[in-house]
Amino acid sequence: MSTKVSFNIVDDGSVTTPLGFQAGGLHCGLKKTERHDLGAIYCEVPATAAGVYTLNAFQAAPLKVTRESIAAAGQLQVMLVNSGNANACTGAQGEADAYEMRAAAAKMFGVPEHAVGVTSTGVIGELLPMGKVRSGIERLPASVSADGGDDFCQAILTTDLVKKTICVELDVDGKRVRIAGAAKGSGMIHPNMATMLGFITTDVAIHHDQLQLLLNQATDESFNMITVDGDTSTNDMVVAMASGLAGNEALTPEHPDWAAYAEAFLHVAQVLAKAIARDGEGATKLIEVHVRGAASDLEAKQIVKTVIGSSLVKSAAFGADANWGRIIAAIGRSGVPVNTETVDIALGDIQTLRQSRPVRFDEDAALEYLKGEFLQYYIDLHMGEGQAVGWGCDLTYEYVRINAAYRT
Amino acid sequence: MSTKVSFNIVDDGSVTTPLGFQAGGLHCGLKKTERHDLGAIYCEVPATAAGVYTLNAFQAAPLKVTRESIAAAGQLQVMLVNSGNANACTGAQGEADAYEMRAAAAKMFGVPEHAVGVTSTGVIGELLPMGKVRSGIERLPASVSADGGDDFCQAILTTDLVKKTICVELDVDGKRVRIAGAAKGSGMIHPNMATMLGFITTDVAIHHDQLQLLLNQATDESFNMITVDGDTSTNDMVVAMASGLAGNEALTPEHPDWAAYAEAFLHVAQVLAKAIARDGEGATKLIEVHVRGAASDLEAKQIVKTVIGSSLVKSAAFGADANWGRIIAAIGRSGVPVNTETVDIALGDIQTLRQSRPVRFDEDAALEYLKGEFLQYYIDLHMGEGQAVGWGCDLTYEYVRINAAYRT
Repeated sequence: MSTKVSFNIVDDGSVTTPLGFQAGGLHCGLKKTERHDLGAIYCEVPATAAGVYTLNAFQAAPLKVTRESIAAAGQLQVMLVNSGNANACTGAQGEADAYEMRAAAAKMFGVPEHAVGVTSTGVIGELLPMGKVRSGIERLPASVSADGGDDFCQAILTTDLVKKTICVELDVDGKRVRIAGAAKGSGMIHPNMATMLGFITTDVAIHHDQLQLLLNQATDESFNMITVDGDTSTNDMVVAMASGLAGNEALTPEHPDWAAYAEAFLHVAQVLAKAIARDGEGATKLIEVHVRGAASDLEAKQIVKTVIGSSLVKSAAFGADANWGRIIAAIGRSGVPVNTETVDIALGDIQTLRQSRPVRFDEDAALEYLKGEFLQYYIDLHMGEGQAVGWGCDLTYEYVRINAAYRT
Repeated sequence: MSTKVSFNIVDDGSVTTPLGFQAGGLHCGLKKTERHDLGAIYCEVPATAAGVYTLNAFQAAPLKVTRESIAAAGQLQVMLVNSGNANACTGAQGEADAYEMRAAAAKMFGVPEHAVGVTSTGVIGELLPMGKVRSGIERLPASVSADGGDDFCQAILTTDLVKKTICVELDVDGKRVRIAGAAKGSGMIHPNMATMLGFITTDVAIHHDQLQLLLNQATDESFNMITVDGDTSTNDMVVAMASGLAGNEALTPEHPDWAAYAEAFLHVAQVLAKAIARDGEGATKLIEVHVRGAASDLEAKQIVKTVIGSSLVKSAAFGADANWGRIIAAIGRSGVPVNTETVDIALGDIQTLRQSRPVRFDEDAALEYLKGEFLQYYIDLHMGEGQAVGWGCDLTYEYVRINAAYRT
């Protein structure tokens, strides 16, 4: 099955491809090795901005600062990021440091303070070495350019294995519009946790409320539908910035191209989300779980998340084990009322359960399929029209090694 | 700190130690190797009975049968169990098989059908080989005796490493009363999941409603407070049987010895629950998480479960990593509203967070403590009087190996 889409992939695009954006990164000393640990996205004009933030009760200081900046005028011109230190659980001093980062970046880039967002990823519970951060921010504008998308991507990585970036383009009002994204996923820094950061740039003209709406909708179908290990960081954040330089009529839900733009925006978010899941710690496979026939989309989502989060399902994927019993057990404990007599399960094309009864299948074919690096599990509840899709990864020896042994 | 308790441990006790109980087990052919796979607890008199069952929507057929038996008269005289096949997701035939097992056992032991409970653990989605089961049940009464507690314990094991059994005694009305338990935990049978089964025998006199109350309360503080990997089996069940042969006045909440008995009953349930957690697949450590200072006991429980269920916390325990950041991240995503400024965390005696601020601690001492096989994590929220305790285990290479590789 192929789906007609209204956008093109820009193969060598980055967050600086949308008109008006520059980016860069450098090493200021937060990472022990000579890798980038400070970066920024800069927009030549004030960009309409929107953000979504972790639901963890212990939100790190930079999230508060970014939220406050966006609240001031619905715009950002600089998105500052450091890796190597999360500035979380750092109390009043941590908050003061995040504000100081904002002020320093505002000064260096010549923009108002509330036009700067700040985000951090890395160690929690340690104060930022502000001397290094300050001198890094002073050098940052010189490193920022239209070619700096790659440097920026490096600056947001922790122990991520691969850079995660995507760029698409489509026409809105006959004007060419670009949407690009960069993300980091489940890296792990002493002594803490996976953090997910996402940055989306676009040159479409759009107001804050509509951009926030698009970002919320896209996040629900992308970043909120991935699970690496069920943990939620204190620092998770996705920020979208729109320069408006494409010259289209401001995009609203009534605009004839809204749906096409929303689809392209969602694609960017999903590509980044899937890349994060695939690059989950120790992962060797990307697992995509489809649920349909649920009573509602919400219930379908709940089942997707339970299945994709099950350690037993994840281990079976690593072992290329056609273990549909673990999938049905996960469905059964998801909290969603299901008809226990009407469940179908397929692993790729291989039907293993029909109307809740085991189907004989070719074990060799199943093994061959499950040895692949991209697994698609299909669940049909035959109860209603609700559906959802989500992504995760397998649970491997390497996950345990990374998370048990990296500190000692 | 030592707590005064009102009961004694019976060192060599088993489920047959309470007056009136016999037990046994034999190999009928469900397991490939010559190990016990069919067993029963038999009571010489109709025993007051109570049960708690998995919340998984896909409940296996035997659970339905047992529930129905207990509902008939609040009594059981035979508790039949097989391992090697869970009789789950087996449709109408599976249900018929479970009823046939009940009828066959009733006939062989000379009791009414509704005096028989049935439980199964093992493969799901495969029909029981009823020929083997029938002939096994015919031989079962001959294997049942007052000395058969050990045989019964073997019959309920799957890939459990150790038998889990406990017996305590105390005085009620000046009469000696015994409470014993046996359990199986997270073994894994092709192609499925961990199943938890618990059997509690006692010779106390008590009516059904009160026994059910005791069992519900004890389960909430024991079996419901352990997590191996967050999955819930289709076959989980705990059954209590009380022969009444101790000769006490029937126990009710108004009875002066109710509290002492309830404490001893809870101890039996907790010992079994902790043994299941410690024997979790691949586990090398038992982790005990204490939460206090929560707004309510319910919220404290929710935090305990989130912390004990976190793959990151579990991996860190395996690696002897004093990673309090992962604990606070788990608290933050537990869904419980917490004061983010007042959290204390200690690993054993080692304080790592006070009032949400990192405390410098001796890394060598922490490593030494965390290398142990029994870890106690203490969390104080300083918000209220709510408290809870729960148990889990570390996440190890061996867990991944068992769950990825056993089938292929």
